Amino acid sequence: MTPLLTKDSQKHEAALRAIAHMPTRSLPVLMDSNFTQQLSDADFMRIAVLLAEKSYLEGGCPIGAVIIDNETRQIVGKGHNTLVQEDHPYNHGETSAIRDAGRIDFSKTTLFTSLSPCDVCATLLYMRGFARVVIGDVTNASGNEGMLLAKGLQVSILEDQTGIALYARFRKEKPAQDLEDWKGLCAVHQDTAS
Amino acid sequence: MTPLLTKDSQKHEAALRAIAHMPTRSLPVLMDSNFTQQLSDADFMRIAVLLAEKSYLEGGCPIGAVIIDNETRQIVGKGHNTLVQEDHPYNHGETSAIRDAGRIDFSKTTLFTSLSPCDVCATLLYMRGFARVVIGDVTNASGNEGMLLAKGLQVSILEDQTGIALYARFRKEKPAQDLEDWKGLCAVHQDTAS
Repeated sequence: MTPLLTKDSQKHEAALRAIAHMPTRSLPVLMDSNFTQQLSDADFMRIAVLLAEKSYLEGGCPIGAVIIDNETRQIVGKGHNTLVQEDHPYNHGETSAIRDAGRIDFSKTTLFTSLSPCDVCATLLYMRGFARVVIGDVTNASGNEGMLLAKGLQVSILEDQTGIALYARFRKEKPAQDLEDWKGLCAVHQDTAS
Repeated sequence: MTPLLTKDSQKHEAALRAIAHMPTRSLPVLMDSNFTQQLSDADFMRIAVLLAEKSYLEGGCPIGAVIIDNETRQIVGKGHNTLVQEDHPYNHGETSAIRDAGRIDFSKTTLFTSLSPCDVCATLLYMRGFARVVIGDVTNASGNEGMLLAKGLQVSILEDQTGIALYARFRKEKPAQDLEDWKGLCAVHQDTAS
């Protein structure tokens, strides 16, 4: 069985978008390991941003994440925020990707997130022993990078301007949804009352 | 439509077990509001423990949680750990109950958990603005009660001896599963290697 994307295929946007949308367990029908090994950190971050774009087009919050095996560079989990899509009060990009990966040893993996992690996700990243986290946007949010470093994670900032522009647009369009996603509906109610 | 449990029904163990197992949205077919209003904090904690028991009998980690509306005392969410059942690397009792509740204002609710919350769940409790948390076991685990108090939550300890004995039994029977549930598979691998 020859997959669609092999070592001679181009790493263009349509290929990365197909990877973002394909269920993780089905990725071998889309690309072989030669293609995967050509993907750079910036490419994995772009896949996280394309997951954020998918969520945005569904009416959700535009935050995505991808987890790769550090040795093989294969994608072992990915996902996006599902506050709206699953009526889910805390499923952010990171929690979505970790849920998708299942019960694996995260100390052998790197997580790429399109937006700087919230307190819950940052806590989960060190509690599950991640080796490294790569953050695509510290412009719209930041704050837990120092805590992650203190907990022994390798932290890389690799800003993706498409993702930053998309999140800024979402925040302007749906400020209440953005606030709920960070601090819950109680914060929206307090904000409305004041 | 008259439900099974009304104001004259007894609050015995079989009734509380049926409540634990019934899907939250279907609870009105099981009991009416008069029955619910007779339930004490200790009864809700017992329901959390019966959810822990359900998980234990499924081969999972015995931790359960129940969320009630502070005004009506109706159950708005509940669940148990699903590390094994859903191959879910972080779904604890608290996260399971919060997912079940969906996008509600948690500042008007109380969460009953059969075991003291881990760092991730404690962070989620304050990030979603819970008013109160009731903890059924600070014998097998503890440590985040002070942080929750500092974040403005009301914290009550209401130990349930059945739940404490069940968790101690599980920990003795499946120490690796217990360790994975707290600190991830990486901690199990480190433990095996040392």
